[in-house]
Amino acid sequence: MAGAPERPGEFELIARYFAPIAGAGGLGLVDDAGLLRPARGYETVVTTDALVAGVHFFADDPAASIARKALAVNLSDLAAKGARPEGFVLSLALPHGWTEAWLADFAQGLARIAGEGACPLIGGDTVSTPGPLILSITAFGSVPAGRMVPRSGARPGDVILVSGTIGDGALGLQAHGFSAHGLSAHGSGKPGWVARVSEEHRHFLADRYLHPQPRLALAAALQLHASAAMDVSDGLVGDLAKLLKASKAGAEIDLDTVPLSAAARAAIMADPALAELAWTGGDDYEILCTASEREYLSLIVAAEAAGIALVAIGRVTDQGAVNYREKGRARSFAQGSFAHF
Amino acid sequence: MAGAPERPGEFELIARYFAPIAGAGGLGLVDDAGLLRPARGYETVVTTDALVAGVHFFADDPAASIARKALAVNLSDLAAKGARPEGFVLSLALPHGWTEAWLADFAQGLARIAGEGACPLIGGDTVSTPGPLILSITAFGSVPAGRMVPRSGARPGDVILVSGTIGDGALGLQAHGFSAHGLSAHGSGKPGWVARVSEEHRHFLADRYLHPQPRLALAAALQLHASAAMDVSDGLVGDLAKLLKASKAGAEIDLDTVPLSAAARAAIMADPALAELAWTGGDDYEILCTASEREYLSLIVAAEAAGIALVAIGRVTDQGAVNYREKGRARSFAQGSFAHF
Repeated sequence: MAGAPERPGEFELIARYFAPIAGAGGLGLVDDAGLLRPARGYETVVTTDALVAGVHFFADDPAASIARKALAVNLSDLAAKGARPEGFVLSLALPHGWTEAWLADFAQGLARIAGEGACPLIGGDTVSTPGPLILSITAFGSVPAGRMVPRSGARPGDVILVSGTIGDGALGLQAHGFSAHGLSAHGSGKPGWVARVSEEHRHFLADRYLHPQPRLALAAALQLHASAAMDVSDGLVGDLAKLLKASKAGAEIDLDTVPLSAAARAAIMADPALAELAWTGGDDYEILCTASEREYLSLIVAAEAAGIALVAIGRVTDQGAVNYREKGRARSFAQGSFAHF
Repeated sequence: MAGAPERPGEFELIARYFAPIAGAGGLGLVDDAGLLRPARGYETVVTTDALVAGVHFFADDPAASIARKALAVNLSDLAAKGARPEGFVLSLALPHGWTEAWLADFAQGLARIAGEGACPLIGGDTVSTPGPLILSITAFGSVPAGRMVPRSGARPGDVILVSGTIGDGALGLQAHGFSAHGLSAHGSGKPGWVARVSEEHRHFLADRYLHPQPRLALAAALQLHASAAMDVSDGLVGDLAKLLKASKAGAEIDLDTVPLSAAARAAIMADPALAELAWTGGDDYEILCTASEREYLSLIVAAEAAGIALVAIGRVTDQGAVNYREKGRARSFAQGSFAHF
């Protein structure tokens, strides 16, 4: 630490930046453990996601955005499982060059998303690493016992639906990389398109990549009406394959019904090859779910009441494969899923 | 990944190495989440600890030992809180050079400690990092509601006790670094002592550092009889200061009663300055606890029935300070705690 700027120690750091985000179960963050107390008849859903600087976000992204994303991707998993957030623990590996200003910004972003999600901090660990920043969050939610929405519940005949719009995250990564970092491309897209869409669309897409909105308002509706669900984090095509594999089923998908934002449509207009990126790229954090013929309209109505659009994009089949159709023709995908690993 | 050896993808890796360690709550590790179902009247204790290669262990330590330690330090926290292990999630950031043989060894070590602790894997995330290996584990235990043993419960007049022997971890780090890595010293100790104790003692100490034994068998006794507890991970002196700060109390400690192993005594005989390292160095993973005058004998007896020695080392006072005495004289410590951060 010789020559390093004067910085608070771990305990001071916790007291100053993290204790204000702590919930009752965090016990003031002065104990070795936090507590989860599910209400009678409820159980705890646990999900964990790690993010690495340079892999899942740019190291020089705003600290508040990094914090927001790290919790948002976990809240997105809870939403998909039909769970109400109850708390989270943060494991933070800080690279040697961290500053107190960075940490203050980080804590402010974390406090904001924790407040929005009603998901308080209940514990954590902070360590120093010679490598890149790594954040690992484990988040907890509650569901009535036995009512977590699984990946494995899709049945032949069920309707397949997605929330919001698909593809903004992957397009947004290109737009953000282009605007903030002067990068020419990430993945398969040609970067030229970024300069050919409006600044408003570029900004919309970059924001969708930087600041995913977990669909927490959908959790109750999913828990009541969905047969299976997961969040779309690694691309619609790849994640649908995972859901169907867990459900031992296949699907017919009409790609023309996959909802796209105006900005994504403008990007695809500028470069038609981007349609594939929209369907297969990661970072959407929308909900992919299935519901029976009897339940799916109730699900759509309940989602609408919660302010979230759910659109039917296909049907579950008893075949092993997923058949995609676009403009009346069969379409297949070479690479189904965006892999961070 | 060009030129890299052929290695399994994330999903194959999970199925091959981690699914066999999964408990029922892990849902086969094919969903986005795991489940915790505390029994009626119980609540969930949550603890999290991150370990960084080169900081908390040597990068070339055996993979099975690294895995064991990562879970053991979390189980140690659960034991201190009086909790029975229920499961854990693992967040694994693998450096670019990982091999399947390394991972197989890692999973085998993890399976063994998970089995010993009856603490199954219920979820996780695996990511790739250009930096060092980082493991973050969040572990869950159950206690009857309201009965978690806090740090903050020590009251003036309570007896202060520690389990097992103190100082082996910090001495073992030197012994292990000397034997396995040819390092001359970590911390303040002179390395000469390592060559002046028997190979048996060196091996004992190195093993205590590499393979901490979480005191799970003590959990039930602590939950029944202790007023406060924490595990000794950052050194007895520093951790006692934390417990007393949380309890708003002070203490009188007789250092001559702090239990030392035969190997630690041999090391201190070889270099008397090591006594300070034993009292202040990290990695003991013993239990530091307090119990009232009425309860402490019951606690010692219950611990003995569980096969663990608990020794009284002092008393809680209503003063703000901790007064240490050694051979009848007052003693103070310049640096109380070993800080990884």
